[in-house]
Amino acid sequence: MSEKVRLALDVMGGDFGPSVVIPGAEIALSRHKDMEFVLVGDERQIMPLLAANPRVKARSEIVHTDIAIRMDDKPSKALRYGRRVSSMWKALDEVKFGRAAAAVSAGNTGALMAMAAFNLKTMPGIERPALAALWPTLKGESIVLDMGASIGADAAALFDMAVMGAAMARVVFDIERPTVGLLNIGVEEVKGLEFIREAGQMLRDADLADLDYRGFVEGDDIGKGTVEVVVTEGFTGNIALKTGEGTARQIGEYLRAAMSRTWRSRLGYLLARNAFATLREKMDPRKSNGAVFLGLNGVVVKSHGGTDPIGFASAVDVAYDMARYDLQSKIRTMVDVSHAARKDPTAAPVEAAS
Amino acid sequence: MSEKVRLALDVMGGDFGPSVVIPGAEIALSRHKDMEFVLVGDERQIMPLLAANPRVKARSEIVHTDIAIRMDDKPSKALRYGRRVSSMWKALDEVKFGRAAAAVSAGNTGALMAMAAFNLKTMPGIERPALAALWPTLKGESIVLDMGASIGADAAALFDMAVMGAAMARVVFDIERPTVGLLNIGVEEVKGLEFIREAGQMLRDADLADLDYRGFVEGDDIGKGTVEVVVTEGFTGNIALKTGEGTARQIGEYLRAAMSRTWRSRLGYLLARNAFATLREKMDPRKSNGAVFLGLNGVVVKSHGGTDPIGFASAVDVAYDMARYDLQSKIRTMVDVSHAARKDPTAAPVEAAS
Repeated sequence: MSEKVRLALDVMGGDFGPSVVIPGAEIALSRHKDMEFVLVGDERQIMPLLAANPRVKARSEIVHTDIAIRMDDKPSKALRYGRRVSSMWKALDEVKFGRAAAAVSAGNTGALMAMAAFNLKTMPGIERPALAALWPTLKGESIVLDMGASIGADAAALFDMAVMGAAMARVVFDIERPTVGLLNIGVEEVKGLEFIREAGQMLRDADLADLDYRGFVEGDDIGKGTVEVVVTEGFTGNIALKTGEGTARQIGEYLRAAMSRTWRSRLGYLLARNAFATLREKMDPRKSNGAVFLGLNGVVVKSHGGTDPIGFASAVDVAYDMARYDLQSKIRTMVDVSHAARKDPTAAPVEAAS
Repeated sequence: MSEKVRLALDVMGGDFGPSVVIPGAEIALSRHKDMEFVLVGDERQIMPLLAANPRVKARSEIVHTDIAIRMDDKPSKALRYGRRVSSMWKALDEVKFGRAAAAVSAGNTGALMAMAAFNLKTMPGIERPALAALWPTLKGESIVLDMGASIGADAAALFDMAVMGAAMARVVFDIERPTVGLLNIGVEEVKGLEFIREAGQMLRDADLADLDYRGFVEGDDIGKGTVEVVVTEGFTGNIALKTGEGTARQIGEYLRAAMSRTWRSRLGYLLARNAFATLREKMDPRKSNGAVFLGLNGVVVKSHGGTDPIGFASAVDVAYDMARYDLQSKIRTMVDVSHAARKDPTAAPVEAAS
């Protein structure tokens, strides 16, 4: 493909702003030569960094703004001072007005959710956006959504998330018919919340060509990689993600402590250091950095705020893939097809006039 | 203390029934000499096992029944054929009629929840029971509840769980004023669901002497051990628990694969095998086996169904501690005190008559 993939970067987002975003873009650019950037932020901070990052310098345009969203402001406050003028908002504008194929921000999650929904709006037919994360599993990676873009889903929202997650899986994993499961507290059909059962029934009834619905999955199925797409309401998804991350860190700590306790274990560690390097890479949260907002009129990728250039580059890679393989049109098509096939199990049966 | 702690064991519960329960009881008995058992189940299966487990033989009475609850039956079905007559029900009867201080079952979780609630009933003032698990953390252990005994809590239910969890922490960890957090998706007061905010306000207002409320915690705070008691609604708690377990297993798999790949890593593994043994012990789910139903008129401990004798012994230990240090009266006292101190933030203000 000859046309360039143009991404808007919120340069001021994240705990470290330009000093992570620009070197991160440089790394991503070394992997994808057909990428270019709109760097949105304070040009006085951007310019000095471009000298050390020549690929970015050669492939970027700067959109200047003085205003950056602070990491700890509430969304309402961020919208008040940052709407139309902040680097976050202006990066989204690049997507909205078709000048960039996707936006990437490591900024304040709540503010980004609010601004993305407010500026780009949800797609026709989609009630609310969902945040989809890549989750490393024993089989490779899965997509888990919603990680907290909205709270309190109903059956129709879970159904749409399943469809959007499957569209993303088709792009990321390059598979025709991704397997999808609904996160629940038991695999038997009788368990769990009513709206999850309803969503399962809707998915079964719709019997979509591009989505292989496999029923309920439990928390431990995420790490097993039982399905390629795990769908859950945003509160639970966020708790699951952070609990998983916390457990991984905890075990990493145990391992470090155990390996440094005796001279034998230290020697063993040295001998096996390649194995530990492999393990570290497997567990490296930077590799799966980059969660995607699905269901908006435009691709928005959220990077962890505290990541480094390697982690930010992963988020840029995700945005690149979504843009290059046209996530948006895949979602639109699948949403249209699925809504045509969808039956609402809660709808009252049509009665003959008496 | 001279009086014995008498525990009722559902011998037929779990994937392996008597062949795990009786050797498990034997192990527990080696740690607590002042314990005795009521073995509820099929005596034809129990008798042959007693020869190999002399401590249990010397300290047990058998209550015979032919009827065992199958592991995969729905609660409603289990109640139909197992009410009054099954080993699970009869073990609960021992508690109900004061012949045992606690019951332990590795049986079907749904059936045990249903039978425990139905047979023992909830304590005065408690709307619904909660299932509390011990969770290994970087600081030691925490208590997390509810793991799924009920679904869809309101603010008052979370408040009661906080109080009951704190009572359990006082027994298990032997601390006067356990720290308590409400699981949420952000530590800022503005985030998350309304009923969680309300519960937080109720806990702050009540300002209890036996409970140190520390505000919201996130998923990754569980493994850090930020607070000693983590309170959440049952659906989310169950997902969090299983996600954490799944992540731990996943990393264990990564580690095994990495360590067996080259001769250097295998040699390193051999040298560091004590360190790996320490790690395995830290991560051993058998050590934290034994979740406790809180809020019933009697102590009921749920063991994992697939555990071995070592794991079952941990669940028996938990029941022993709860009985020996009188969890029930601690809960009753704390519930009474807390209800007297509780203000319902949703209650309409009292208006003067016009």
